[in-house]
Amino acid sequence: MPGVLMGVGRAGLKESGDPDILVLRLPDRSVSSFLFTRNSFRSASVLYSQDTLAKGKNIKALLINSGNANCGTGEVGYEHAELMAQACAQNLGIKKEEVLVFSTGIIGEFLPIEKVIAGIEEACSYLDPLNLELASWVISTTDRFPKVDRWSGGNLEVYGFAKGAGMIEPNMGTMLAFVFTNAKVDKPELESLHRRVNEKTFNSITVDGCMSTNDSFGLISLGDIVAEKQTLERGVEEVSLTLAKKIVKDGEGATKVIAITVLKAKTEKKAKTLAKKVANSLLVKTAVFGRDPNWGRIASALGSTEYVIDPSQLRIYLGNILLYNGGKIYFNEDKAREYIERSREIRIVIDLGEGKHMWTCYSSDLGYDYIRINAEYRT
Amino acid sequence: MPGVLMGVGRAGLKESGDPDILVLRLPDRSVSSFLFTRNSFRSASVLYSQDTLAKGKNIKALLINSGNANCGTGEVGYEHAELMAQACAQNLGIKKEEVLVFSTGIIGEFLPIEKVIAGIEEACSYLDPLNLELASWVISTTDRFPKVDRWSGGNLEVYGFAKGAGMIEPNMGTMLAFVFTNAKVDKPELESLHRRVNEKTFNSITVDGCMSTNDSFGLISLGDIVAEKQTLERGVEEVSLTLAKKIVKDGEGATKVIAITVLKAKTEKKAKTLAKKVANSLLVKTAVFGRDPNWGRIASALGSTEYVIDPSQLRIYLGNILLYNGGKIYFNEDKAREYIERSREIRIVIDLGEGKHMWTCYSSDLGYDYIRINAEYRT
Repeated sequence: MPGVLMGVGRAGLKESGDPDILVLRLPDRSVSSFLFTRNSFRSASVLYSQDTLAKGKNIKALLINSGNANCGTGEVGYEHAELMAQACAQNLGIKKEEVLVFSTGIIGEFLPIEKVIAGIEEACSYLDPLNLELASWVISTTDRFPKVDRWSGGNLEVYGFAKGAGMIEPNMGTMLAFVFTNAKVDKPELESLHRRVNEKTFNSITVDGCMSTNDSFGLISLGDIVAEKQTLERGVEEVSLTLAKKIVKDGEGATKVIAITVLKAKTEKKAKTLAKKVANSLLVKTAVFGRDPNWGRIASALGSTEYVIDPSQLRIYLGNILLYNGGKIYFNEDKAREYIERSREIRIVIDLGEGKHMWTCYSSDLGYDYIRINAEYRT
Repeated sequence: MPGVLMGVGRAGLKESGDPDILVLRLPDRSVSSFLFTRNSFRSASVLYSQDTLAKGKNIKALLINSGNANCGTGEVGYEHAELMAQACAQNLGIKKEEVLVFSTGIIGEFLPIEKVIAGIEEACSYLDPLNLELASWVISTTDRFPKVDRWSGGNLEVYGFAKGAGMIEPNMGTMLAFVFTNAKVDKPELESLHRRVNEKTFNSITVDGCMSTNDSFGLISLGDIVAEKQTLERGVEEVSLTLAKKIVKDGEGATKVIAITVLKAKTEKKAKTLAKKVANSLLVKTAVFGRDPNWGRIASALGSTEYVIDPSQLRIYLGNILLYNGGKIYFNEDKAREYIERSREIRIVIDLGEGKHMWTCYSSDLGYDYIRINAEYRT
């Protein structure tokens, strides 16, 4: 059965002149679910797509432009999104309400709408089967590498592509991800699976705690085969987590991915809150950049939320090395530094010793390049 | 009437060999109020002082050591704090329960208790009238300058000293502040005034959103004169705010203080939450470091809390320059850059246009030195 088709165009939104318009034509039988940033100050394209989804039509095409976020552009920006959907629908012979629009790039600039529409016409003029690497490249802004992943189990397939460098690009603060499966899933089930997976993957990564205005994550079921539910969820989670970690890895100036797991918490919410607090701690992130096994900064971050922790029950591990055991202990600092030095993914494990819930968040270290990129970038 | 007396000693806790023990003898007639960090992972000295306060005795002496935070030291650290209070009480001829202990410095090292007790004996052996500059210097760790302030209105006097460089020193994450007034205030009134002022001053500054394990703020009424309540509150607030801003100014690598005011919010809580979110935004802080009038980053930070904002009602000012007015506008970027360049304190004013509440937070910009200091510091 025919799968997802793609078309590529140029609207001149990138200084490099690289392609910046991507059209995805989904099979008519597909079922999809979309999640968007909760930022109040969100892109006109996001607002338009949310309104389109509210109309309840089946979505048949996704239109993505890179180089301009269409954010902070008010009513004009909203009209631009609508004109884009219209142009895409006309060229593909479908309805405007069947097209969603996504934008990523600079904030606060109006789209050069005639050029964008010409780019959409170009993209729709010739459709090829989906090429994940090419799709990721077209929607990229300051990404240093394309983000794709594929997973299979028997005849079940899950694959996807994404863009984003730590969600925190200066004025380009966007994570976009699209994951596809050949499994048949009905809409309510797909939406509930989508929310669960999103919470454990894209919502558990952070680079600087800044929430983008344009983040969007789509999950599309192509409806070809029947799959076992748990296997499907595992596949979607694996692909989504791999894409999410690639975004962290591409964080500005990042040299390491940091996985922070909070174990044996009373509730999952507490585990998640504490893991996020450590993931966002600048002191922890700079310590990892400096190869410093600094448990004091981890403990201090853990203590600073609204939750009470009991320092006498707390255990902190770096990889397999116990750093803190309910009180000051002596550990081999050289070995701990060496662990940070030689590991591409640093594991920090925090055992609260009070319950049975856990959560993992993913972060990156923070170095000079973050300042360089974010301070020297000009609007 | 005799005022506050001070003594200085050396316990060898600082590499420089500078004085590191400060004893303050308060007049017996004084009434005091103390506020501490809410970090669960707090210093043994803080825990000990909180337990001492719970006994309800009038506080007659404050004992402060710098160079070691006595944090992460468990039961041993608690015993050390008690031994310190005991030594101070014996040397001053008062009761152990009348002495509070404060520590600031490195986390996770036991105090060399014999040396500390010798330093306390030295400090208690000769008491002089309080010298604010000297007191601030003795309790300093990595501070670049002493933090003191004096205020008077008629015969009413308010003065204080503090230490702290942005609350975020690596493993030295402590803000200590002590403010004195000659006004007579009863305890419940002093405590309520203290909480209000703390919320508007020390609780409204941030450098990196990291909460210290040792933060403490004392307000001491010496009981010499009767003062008008509102005048007293104004004086205490001015001294506290000046000390708080000096801490921000001394933030690692800071080149500018940023004052963020949220105006016309529906509730004070919303104004405070939004002001803090902007104050902690790394993207806003790096933009100021890069002299970039980047309203998109401010808007994006405002949109990312649990509160809904209406972008069409939002106005964002940099000093007197309107950057955003419910939609994209054109402003003189060179003038805006010049404002950042030439101002020592940058004012960001955010008008939500929805109510009548306001709040101001103080932050600093974020530059290369923050990374250098925090990544290259070794435990």
